[in-house]
Amino acid sequence: MIRTEKILVQTKGENDIVNVTDIVRAKLAKSKGRDGFMILFLQSTTSALTIMEFEDGLRIDIPRAMSRIVPKSIEYEHERAYHDGNGHSHVKASMIGADLVLPFKDGELLLGTWQQIAVLEFDVRPRERSLIVQIITE
Amino acid sequence: MIRTEKILVQTKGENDIVNVTDIVRAKLAKSKGRDGFMILFLQSTTSALTIMEFEDGLRIDIPRAMSRIVPKSIEYEHERAYHDGNGHSHVKASMIGADLVLPFKDGELLLGTWQQIAVLEFDVRPRERSLIVQIITE
Amino acid sequence: MIRTEKILVQTKGENDIVNVTDIVRAKLAKSKGRDGFMILFLQSTTSALTIMEFEDGLRIDIPRAMSRIVPKSIEYEHERAYHDGNGHSHVKASMIGADLVLPFKDGELLLGTWQQIAVLEFDVRPRERSLIVQIITE
Repeated sequence: MIRTEKILVQTKGENDIVNVTDIVRAKLAKSKGRDGFMILFLQSTTSALTIMEFEDGLRIDIPRAMSRIVPKSIEYEHERAYHDGNGHSHVKASMIGADLVLPFKDGELLLGTWQQIAVLEFDVRPRERSLIVQIITE
Repeated sequence: MIRTEKILVQTKGENDIVNVTDIVRAKLAKSKGRDGFMILFLQSTTSALTIMEFEDGLRIDIPRAMSRIVPKSIEYEHERAYHDGNGHSHVKASMIGADLVLPFKDGELLLGTWQQIAVLEFDVRPRERSLIVQIITE
Repeated sequence: MIRTEKILVQTKGENDIVNVTDIVRAKLAKSKGRDGFMILFLQSTTSALTIMEFEDGLRIDIPRAMSRIVPKSIEYEHERAYHDGNGHSHVKASMIGADLVLPFKDGELLLGTWQQIAVLEFDVRPRERSLIVQIITE
């Protein structure tokens, strides 16, 4: 059985990270799925989806590391056509990725103790993101 | 129902990016799948699969960023045994990844407006890549 | 049909890479699954899962590249609360990711010739890692 839904996730701007673990867990609970997996897919090219320990330090460290690796201050060809100042955001998003697959069993997501599901906003302004949640059960 | 196929993707050499969105969509249309998801898996250790806005600027920016992060000019231990000049290509490929999962509904891939599926060639010469496409429906 | 199991993977410390291809293949063989896919999910925020050519050179090159990109020597906010010296490990793990999806057909994983499944230990000491293996067949 396959059930597909969309969650809207509001971000606060560049380098904001939103913890979506609780809302994703609530979707699983509502589906009453016992054994199966969830597909999460973020419909965006300037934000990304990852697993992290969601704590105040890493909420700074992860975006800071990405900004050191893909600096905003250098020139991007993307700007020549678009002039929207987010060339670096696209590069970061394509490096991290937009999809996640999460197994569950007995109705519980099989996340490790410290694992949380996070939407990383890399774009230069607040955005409302569409997160597809697909729940697959036997 | 699970249907598995292989697509051959010809790349033009190092840092070429091939947009496979149309061919992947055509496979989905042909399968007549309504609700489900696709697994894409690239059978390679020197190229990668990602989601991006496929436009001329980013086709330069993304490989350029990867080459700044993982420079071709430094030494790689991989060379000691292989001498094929692609140590950096392997590192980039393992960072980005070879698999993607894409949900669909009512026969349509649930991609965002700007999202395209891209094969990133990191190897130092043109290659023919095998892309596994698996379509799973209820 | 969905079958979910856990594999324990012992790592030897920072930058160790463990090839889990054979043990994952054995799980598939034991399941007698013919056509389908496997979901691998590592229950950790300081190690990661990727595909690579598993050879002595790249076992050095990949962790070395990650350490150049995300240096251990700089300060991480994560340390202020935790003092466990692994802020960089968390960042690396979130960049590479904890999940993989692998199609199989006729009972064989559809890996390319050089592709192996690898657990990358980024934490600063040996750890026992829990790897969820979910096998889905028609």
